Amino acid sequence: MPTSKNKPGKKGLKIVIKIGRYVFSSSLDSKTLSAYAGFLRTLRREGHRVVVVTGGGDEARKYISVARGVGGSEYTCDTLGIEVSRLNSRLLITSLGEDAYPAIPVSLEELRKAFESGKIIVMGGLQPGQSTNAVAALAAEAVEADLLLNTTNIDGVYTANPKEDPNAKKLDKIKTSDFLKLVIDDKLSAGGYELFDPLAIKIVERSKIPTRIIDGRKIENIERAVKGEPIGTLVES
Amino acid sequence: MPTSKNKPGKKGLKIVIKIGRYVFSSSLDSKTLSAYAGFLRTLRREGHRVVVVTGGGDEARKYISVARGVGGSEYTCDTLGIEVSRLNSRLLITSLGEDAYPAIPVSLEELRKAFESGKIIVMGGLQPGQSTNAVAALAAEAVEADLLLNTTNIDGVYTANPKEDPNAKKLDKIKTSDFLKLVIDDKLSAGGYELFDPLAIKIVERSKIPTRIIDGRKIENIERAVKGEPIGTLVES
Amino acid sequence: MPTSKNKPGKKGLKIVIKIGRYVFSSSLDSKTLSAYAGFLRTLRREGHRVVVVTGGGDEARKYISVARGVGGSEYTCDTLGIEVSRLNSRLLITSLGEDAYPAIPVSLEELRKAFESGKIIVMGGLQPGQSTNAVAALAAEAVEADLLLNTTNIDGVYTANPKEDPNAKKLDKIKTSDFLKLVIDDKLSAGGYELFDPLAIKIVERSKIPTRIIDGRKIENIERAVKGEPIGTLVES
Amino acid sequence: MPTSKNKPGKKGLKIVIKIGRYVFSSSLDSKTLSAYAGFLRTLRREGHRVVVVTGGGDEARKYISVARGVGGSEYTCDTLGIEVSRLNSRLLITSLGEDAYPAIPVSLEELRKAFESGKIIVMGGLQPGQSTNAVAALAAEAVEADLLLNTTNIDGVYTANPKEDPNAKKLDKIKTSDFLKLVIDDKLSAGGYELFDPLAIKIVERSKIPTRIIDGRKIENIERAVKGEPIGTLVES
Amino acid sequence: MPTSKNKPGKKGLKIVIKIGRYVFSSSLDSKTLSAYAGFLRTLRREGHRVVVVTGGGDEARKYISVARGVGGSEYTCDTLGIEVSRLNSRLLITSLGEDAYPAIPVSLEELRKAFESGKIIVMGGLQPGQSTNAVAALAAEAVEADLLLNTTNIDGVYTANPKEDPNAKKLDKIKTSDFLKLVIDDKLSAGGYELFDPLAIKIVERSKIPTRIIDGRKIENIERAVKGEPIGTLVES
Amino acid sequence: MPTSKNKPGKKGLKIVIKIGRYVFSSSLDSKTLSAYAGFLRTLRREGHRVVVVTGGGDEARKYISVARGVGGSEYTCDTLGIEVSRLNSRLLITSLGEDAYPAIPVSLEELRKAFESGKIIVMGGLQPGQSTNAVAALAAEAVEADLLLNTTNIDGVYTANPKEDPNAKKLDKIKTSDFLKLVIDDKLSAGGYELFDPLAIKIVERSKIPTRIIDGRKIENIERAVKGEPIGTLVES
Repeated sequence: MPTSKNKPGKKGLKIVIKIGRYVFSSSLDSKTLSAYAGFLRTLRREGHRVVVVTGGGDEARKYISVARGVGGSEYTCDTLGIEVSRLNSRLLITSLGEDAYPAIPVSLEELRKAFESGKIIVMGGLQPGQSTNAVAALAAEAVEADLLLNTTNIDGVYTANPKEDPNAKKLDKIKTSDFLKLVIDDKLSAGGYELFDPLAIKIVERSKIPTRIIDGRKIENIERAVKGEPIGTLVES
Repeated sequence: MPTSKNKPGKKGLKIVIKIGRYVFSSSLDSKTLSAYAGFLRTLRREGHRVVVVTGGGDEARKYISVARGVGGSEYTCDTLGIEVSRLNSRLLITSLGEDAYPAIPVSLEELRKAFESGKIIVMGGLQPGQSTNAVAALAAEAVEADLLLNTTNIDGVYTANPKEDPNAKKLDKIKTSDFLKLVIDDKLSAGGYELFDPLAIKIVERSKIPTRIIDGRKIENIERAVKGEPIGTLVES
Repeated sequence: MPTSKNKPGKKGLKIVIKIGRYVFSSSLDSKTLSAYAGFLRTLRREGHRVVVVTGGGDEARKYISVARGVGGSEYTCDTLGIEVSRLNSRLLITSLGEDAYPAIPVSLEELRKAFESGKIIVMGGLQPGQSTNAVAALAAEAVEADLLLNTTNIDGVYTANPKEDPNAKKLDKIKTSDFLKLVIDDKLSAGGYELFDPLAIKIVERSKIPTRIIDGRKIENIERAVKGEPIGTLVES
Repeated sequence: MPTSKNKPGKKGLKIVIKIGRYVFSSSLDSKTLSAYAGFLRTLRREGHRVVVVTGGGDEARKYISVARGVGGSEYTCDTLGIEVSRLNSRLLITSLGEDAYPAIPVSLEELRKAFESGKIIVMGGLQPGQSTNAVAALAAEAVEADLLLNTTNIDGVYTANPKEDPNAKKLDKIKTSDFLKLVIDDKLSAGGYELFDPLAIKIVERSKIPTRIIDGRKIENIERAVKGEPIGTLVES
Repeated sequence: MPTSKNKPGKKGLKIVIKIGRYVFSSSLDSKTLSAYAGFLRTLRREGHRVVVVTGGGDEARKYISVARGVGGSEYTCDTLGIEVSRLNSRLLITSLGEDAYPAIPVSLEELRKAFESGKIIVMGGLQPGQSTNAVAALAAEAVEADLLLNTTNIDGVYTANPKEDPNAKKLDKIKTSDFLKLVIDDKLSAGGYELFDPLAIKIVERSKIPTRIIDGRKIENIERAVKGEPIGTLVES
Repeated sequence: MPTSKNKPGKKGLKIVIKIGRYVFSSSLDSKTLSAYAGFLRTLRREGHRVVVVTGGGDEARKYISVARGVGGSEYTCDTLGIEVSRLNSRLLITSLGEDAYPAIPVSLEELRKAFESGKIIVMGGLQPGQSTNAVAALAAEAVEADLLLNTTNIDGVYTANPKEDPNAKKLDKIKTSDFLKLVIDDKLSAGGYELFDPLAIKIVERSKIPTRIIDGRKIENIERAVKGEPIGTLVES
């Protein structure tokens, strides 16, 4: 029984939001966290059902660096990254108080059960080999989300790395197939994978999940995306 | 404490073998299964430590087709595929008897614990959005395998789809970066993804896992690959 | 604090329905599945709380046959049957969409927790040595059901196997003690156990669960049984 | 790969022993427990692999009686019985010290994994609706036991209840089909079900498990049964 | 987002009640249990959210004594005590019927998830080394309770053991720091630890949980404490 | 079956070592970690069976501070501390490679099962309300350790806080009852609880676990304690 998607701007949307390093930086602070929590609570009170995926941020990098120093495999480094992303989830859950589901799902099946609660679900990584961007896309697919927001610290997808190429142009829309090529060709430098990895793109494409890549450093950008405004880059399937 | 890799042809290798549709076809039969089980037991007795990843095969396709007919999402279809792949694992475990670990790992962490037993581990899919090829690569990374064998029903990677292009040439070796482009450009048709998906390639590359794609329909091909003979296509990181 | 049973025909019944091979046949099709799902949704909307137990059907037989071919024990064959019955549960859950609880209980304790959700619960087998008929009776006992419907492909319990004995007579009612003898004496041929096994009868008897054995191939039969009409065979404790 | 059964009297048998109320009586005492533990350790040191299933005994009866007094269902009463049987398991594990596996399996799958440890496994009930006799038979099937000993407080199966019928005769052997009729006809009174329930008989029959019903109050009886002596009643499939 | 505490006497309190040996004595009876269950249901219907922690009582002592007799460690004895306390929880859950959450939390995380259900949660011990008094304090902290009631068989905290010292005086209030000294100095004899152990005091203190120690043998005492009357001894942080 | 304790200095000891903040400081570095891992591997190769409990260290403090800033309860702060202590466990497991058990026990029961593997077990915190010192004592009790080493950044227990009181004297031995008073009276300042909390002392006392508090910053101190040399402070039960 497929549920027909609701359009952004409507009430009662199912929204998945990936929150990345710009919140979980080395200068991790309570004030920033509280601001995002406040916004998420507002979304819930407006009737939206929200899943948040937190990245590992700078703390993950720190732990991974020590692990590499003692000969840790890629598997182990990813495992540490996942565990730190869950610490970040816990912080956000704390900040959300009663509006958050108290446990962190560690599989998509657990997410689906937790989502039944009507509370805001916060989760981190799931498995080595996947970025938390991919987790956000998988979560969006699992709950049949109406909107996937990948919030990051740049304002959308560019034709090239804007820090290196002065002719790089921000795109208002991008097709999943073109996005995949950009990411694979690594035209976006290391930042490319951070924007969105191939698995994330594949999931968005196959399940036709309405997806935007936006600058999350200003909360109002996220608000505007929820309202359906043409902000950041729209990923079209 | 990184363990230095052993070379194929040596005793005591850690080997991950993906077994696909050619064994788990609609004409699923005990005789074929017993033959593969016999071979795997021999590997164990020669001192190798073996993980087998079974695909969903034709039964998975059947269940997925019914699920699509009742409006099942991609998430649900993949979930069914994973569950059927585990049924196939159970059949192989049965066929292996005392040589097999009795339970099917459902996460990489469980695989690592089961691998401590010294028995043959058999597992299926792990998560929606991943082919069992990707699972085989993840499993190889998790147990720090010396050899990953992707056994399928063609004898290696071609420059194009051999069924459509008479000039298609089998490759003895392929770099992960070139392989990724072939797969993404879909030059190999739908079969491309079946050979190896982008996630699998990424994992093989980052962990430098010695990998061969071979025709598994003749068991002696798998034997030869274990002995280090240049069969099928070698994937180079 | 025993809850007094509601009578069939009332609103708000707790109903357990066993659905067997006639739905999960080798020609497994979406249309049949959708029809049953539609009916179950209607029951829920009328205020009934429903648990469905799915059998393994023809697919289970196929897997079990291969397992026997490679020397699988009875334990293993039953395990495969349970796993296939859960695949069938998953198909029905998919077809039910939002009306179904998203996870399949694998113990009676899990069933009881899931039942708190108010959604339709779908489950398969639980343990080697038990038919899914027994599971349905155990489930009915665990949720203190007002009605247990064992739907099958004959229209009730006969005094003998109707296919072999032209004098076989359909019974409108049967006492659990008489039913047990019929089953044990195997007067009903192999079909006997399929109708209801000794464990199922014992559970129905000790917990005095109102139980009917009906032909489920016509959905209206199930409807009529829920309304309290005297269809099929009533099992009296 | 079916493992051929070893005969009682041989070394290295897989043995499942059901220990009942005669050990776990209301006068539960350390000395009795230590004596049985000592014997079980000896079995292990002789090379046998042992699974012990403990009944709920008098304590279970006490808890069940209170539960009935507050309106507890059959489901709940059985659940309490299972939990008390596991308390008894814990006592035996304590008494066995290092020879016992430290955890109590709560499913047959867990039993199979624990059995890999080579230690003595002790477990109680598994599921409402089953006696611990049935659990012992299921456990014997799951580990492919060479011998199942149901130890109780009478010296075998009688043609009728020996306490009521002076002509009751002890049987040296009984076929499973005849045993089933005796149990169903309740010729053995309430004690019948305690001896062996229908599910237990069905499992013994279908998996052809060599089974003896013996008086366990003298430890040497158990010893003699392990050695293959014709003590108690042999159940033939 | 800290929730401000509600005062006793208000509606909609979160209350944790420790129920001890005076209910779960060797003469465990249905009538007493039903009376407490009736009272707890009333609390729920008045809008309070209740967690009950049951002690092991006399049955725990019995099992522990046998365990010591076979050489059981402190760890094992505590484990048995925890398991018996959960049997007692099960009895109370049975008595509460539909008002109780059907499963017994075995960790604080599970408690928090179960608490979302709005039903009465009943739990026993959690870990060796902790009394169920400490569990009650931990539970109160985990659900951010407005009131913790430690019900026992004396009417509060005394300056000395009232059975031995005729000058022992009941205290209306006691500071956590003074209470800790009384307990540590063992001035209260063996009973001291039973009243409240150091871990319980530490938790009450650090989370400023309003706590009363009262005589629970009369249900009206518990009622009065919930209404905010100055009964028993108030523990001040 | 109580196992008689082995004396320090013997081969084949069961040893539990608590490793604290001096290794997991804010300047977390691979070199220090590798040095401790090397030492632990040596212990294993000498035949000792080792459990290591890692504290949360400076990272835990960082996360807890942010949690407090967003209104996190004591429960939540402790939960974060536990999770960070497990990250530290993971780092040490990585550093130990094949000598470590790959999973982190999250309960004492899991510890006991993992301990059967013969590998080095590394674990962090277990439950809110407990320091990792208490976890180390509980772990020592659970595995019936011959030696518990609480390694810290001072060289033993003093009569008073040596930083504040020039007359503070290091003790070679301390009785558990005296130690408890020192800790409760807070004579050791905040550092007191870090040395050893009341729960840890209670466990050491009741199970008579040979315990030393030593300066772990020099690995040779730990070596000497294992050999039975009179270093640091011996805690006597």
